[in-house]
Amino acid sequence: MSERGARRKGGGRAGRREARNTVATSAPFIERKIPYFEMLSTEALELIEHNADRLLAEIGIDFLDDPEVLELFKNAGAEVEGTRVRFAPGLCRSIIQASAPKSYTQHARNPARSVTIGGKNTVLVPAYGPPFVHDLDKGRRYATIEDFRNFVKLAYMAPGLHHSGGTVCEPVDLPVNKRHYDMVYSHFKYSDKPLMGSVTLDSRAQDSVDMAKLVFGDEFVDQNCVLTSLINVNSPMVFDGTMLGSLKVYARNNQATVISPFILAGAMSPVTVTGTVTQILAEALAGITLTQLIRPGAPVVFGTFAAAVSMATGAPTFGTPEPSMVIYAAAALARRLGVPFRSGGGLCASKLPDAQAAYESANTLQTAALAGVNFMLHTAGWLEGGLAMGYEKFIMDCDQASMIGVLLNGVDLSEDAQAMSAFEEGGPGKHFLGSAHTLKHFETAFYRSTVADSNSYEQWSAEGSLDTAQRANVIWKKMLADYEAPALDPAIDEALLDYMRQRKASFEDRDY
Amino acid sequence: MSERGARRKGGGRAGRREARNTVATSAPFIERKIPYFEMLSTEALELIEHNADRLLAEIGIDFLDDPEVLELFKNAGAEVEGTRVRFAPGLCRSIIQASAPKSYTQHARNPARSVTIGGKNTVLVPAYGPPFVHDLDKGRRYATIEDFRNFVKLAYMAPGLHHSGGTVCEPVDLPVNKRHYDMVYSHFKYSDKPLMGSVTLDSRAQDSVDMAKLVFGDEFVDQNCVLTSLINVNSPMVFDGTMLGSLKVYARNNQATVISPFILAGAMSPVTVTGTVTQILAEALAGITLTQLIRPGAPVVFGTFAAAVSMATGAPTFGTPEPSMVIYAAAALARRLGVPFRSGGGLCASKLPDAQAAYESANTLQTAALAGVNFMLHTAGWLEGGLAMGYEKFIMDCDQASMIGVLLNGVDLSEDAQAMSAFEEGGPGKHFLGSAHTLKHFETAFYRSTVADSNSYEQWSAEGSLDTAQRANVIWKKMLADYEAPALDPAIDEALLDYMRQRKASFEDRDY
Repeated sequence: MSERGARRKGGGRAGRREARNTVATSAPFIERKIPYFEMLSTEALELIEHNADRLLAEIGIDFLDDPEVLELFKNAGAEVEGTRVRFAPGLCRSIIQASAPKSYTQHARNPARSVTIGGKNTVLVPAYGPPFVHDLDKGRRYATIEDFRNFVKLAYMAPGLHHSGGTVCEPVDLPVNKRHYDMVYSHFKYSDKPLMGSVTLDSRAQDSVDMAKLVFGDEFVDQNCVLTSLINVNSPMVFDGTMLGSLKVYARNNQATVISPFILAGAMSPVTVTGTVTQILAEALAGITLTQLIRPGAPVVFGTFAAAVSMATGAPTFGTPEPSMVIYAAAALARRLGVPFRSGGGLCASKLPDAQAAYESANTLQTAALAGVNFMLHTAGWLEGGLAMGYEKFIMDCDQASMIGVLLNGVDLSEDAQAMSAFEEGGPGKHFLGSAHTLKHFETAFYRSTVADSNSYEQWSAEGSLDTAQRANVIWKKMLADYEAPALDPAIDEALLDYMRQRKASFEDRDY
Repeated sequence: MSERGARRKGGGRAGRREARNTVATSAPFIERKIPYFEMLSTEALELIEHNADRLLAEIGIDFLDDPEVLELFKNAGAEVEGTRVRFAPGLCRSIIQASAPKSYTQHARNPARSVTIGGKNTVLVPAYGPPFVHDLDKGRRYATIEDFRNFVKLAYMAPGLHHSGGTVCEPVDLPVNKRHYDMVYSHFKYSDKPLMGSVTLDSRAQDSVDMAKLVFGDEFVDQNCVLTSLINVNSPMVFDGTMLGSLKVYARNNQATVISPFILAGAMSPVTVTGTVTQILAEALAGITLTQLIRPGAPVVFGTFAAAVSMATGAPTFGTPEPSMVIYAAAALARRLGVPFRSGGGLCASKLPDAQAAYESANTLQTAALAGVNFMLHTAGWLEGGLAMGYEKFIMDCDQASMIGVLLNGVDLSEDAQAMSAFEEGGPGKHFLGSAHTLKHFETAFYRSTVADSNSYEQWSAEGSLDTAQRANVIWKKMLADYEAPALDPAIDEALLDYMRQRKASFEDRDY
């Protein structure tokens, strides 16, 4: 297998050329050139850090069903009492800062699509986890593996997305205990962007790593990150056995985990922004520490998912100011800790790709972009609080993703961009449309939306008075019709298919 | 009339109590507690200032059809050649900084609704200028005075809006040369929030001032700002006679003007952000200078309206990254100049209150909020590049306006908000929904959207599967049905009606 990996690497240059031919050329990730928006002062952040340390020392975190983890913490100097682990102030931070990388490269099977996660970089990733899909033609329905493949293909073709994601939707037509094979395979087969592994059981995490080894080679995987996988904290302040099992597999294999407190504020955390961020920091510190105890230097991301619970109905709400404040605060805390940060995305509660979906998504996307999110899970497709993956919503969000790339690239201050020649050419009352300066730049001057209609009312009417979702419906169908798979070494493809066949045949289907 | 003004002021406390009874209590404007997002460095801003100074000195600005204005500039040391005025580097800045107020209070007829424009304050204002209206029931149609009154009423009732605006839509059923009477009257009659005056002719500006004097008293108006009115620059680098006439009326009467370069970048300005911002600064400097030459100390706002022209179709586009960069840069330049700043709003090109409308609006609203816009014209209602005022769009944008108020209020770091007691009460695995801390705060904890549906799919389906626009449709109708006019002294009302009758009878209707 390492031989196959070596062959793979040998073909890097050809692979890059191929990739340019099949997908619109785009940067593999965003290198930020603008400042962060720092909503909180240093004093405020220090206060939250102090309180998180108090939580860790006085209340502690529960680590369930995993004696090995408790042993690791005990040996590192934490106080263990049953499943409860308490950390002296500063203990987690010192362990993390001794070994956790500030940023890391996640390799894609096409080297031109490898991403650097952390520092000033932003990687935009599809939505994760929805059991349903939604489109204008068939409405809302359970997702299938065909839907899964479709979203992998769409993400591959979207120039604004840098990552293939993980569970872009749940293929509920496949057995629960075997669908991860088809998911990991589909990412490798239908895309050449980096991907996420399974976390629903330790053995499925190991399967993800083993399949990655078939693609990249054993040694390469041991020394390099090829998977970034999502470890949700069972907030408040609990890590369960399933998540710990997957966390251990990935960390041991030197693969990245995103340690993500999963917060519906007011239910899983206090009903205030400050209290919520304090808890998020405490949970993240504990989980990130664990990765470094398992394998010092294993790549790890400080994650945050925060919605606010409606105090009227108990429903999670998105795109409101309080979760935005949580993102601004948590991003700054991750920077101070010195690890990459995950949050944000096109989050919304709407059941449709309508105005609510767009307001809520845009509010969160803008926040995450300005806050400095490094790994933006859920960038595209998310509907209904994450229960549905929307085809039209995906197209709309990808348009926003491309805009984020432009925004983070900042203002061009070059002499040419200062445009003094354009003023000298024209003057008061003279429009610039035909000026030499405009003609030189017009192709690339302004971002052109793929889905917005900015034409006159008359022209828009003549073209059928379509709303945004209807235009997006046309776009995703055309993209899928135009899709061409990136080349995959047939030997690797066959090895992946063999592995799946053998593993699937080795145990019974199960629905859990 | 000054007697009537005095009576008015005498009744201030009662007026305030009344206002609280008729409209949901809300702050009269937003006092910002979070930092600005400074996208550009000091060096970048200095470069733009330097280039703007070069534009003013080397190319200059045209001031058309107004010898008086040319004379004023000449006397102030500018170089006048025909209608072209050139300014030595730093001249405009020094004139402005000698007398223009950093912030000013615009008085509302209800003192509790007076707003302070400038500094760390944000005032959110309805959209301005659309000749059409749009709603789900009747689609798009020409606006009428009934529509105008409806939007004044809706803005009065919206807790997120702080201002009644100006031409909330064009009442095209009234003669062009007389409709300003009904517009100004409707603002005074149906709202007690501050308003904008007419600018379409100098005499109409004077009518606006004279009507304001009937409400506030002559002397009060001479010494205080009661109107903030919009002076668009005829970009690139031209002020026309109409705008100059209105500018002079307002400045002479000590009333505020918003000097707004009106830019479709690539057409009225260079096709780059830096070039566009340079031109905006030059135009604003020249116009603001003029207000101070007419009446030193007259309140004045640095305005910016910037869209990007689609290089494919020539249509203006909104909500894309480049206009956002213009707002961030121009806001910072206005702060450095030391005058209040106007920009932003719920700008969009969409013909419908759909996802495009919402993405574009949210992108601009978020930008304007973080950039530090003081006077946010077009906050609510704008559709179709400003050609239509949408009833449903207005409701949706007002919801966003309220959220901006929460966002700019920042994070509560009080001991109570730190929520350490909530953690002590619960602990790992214990949810917070029933905790004493949550129960104490749940009423006000998180912003509750007026228009979003965050319920389950099942409940949403049972309630008719409405999209956001359909829910907004129900809301505006209910608001108009529930509307109660704020009390207006019958003597003032009669004086305003008398004035209108006399003036309207004194000349013929005209359609220009």
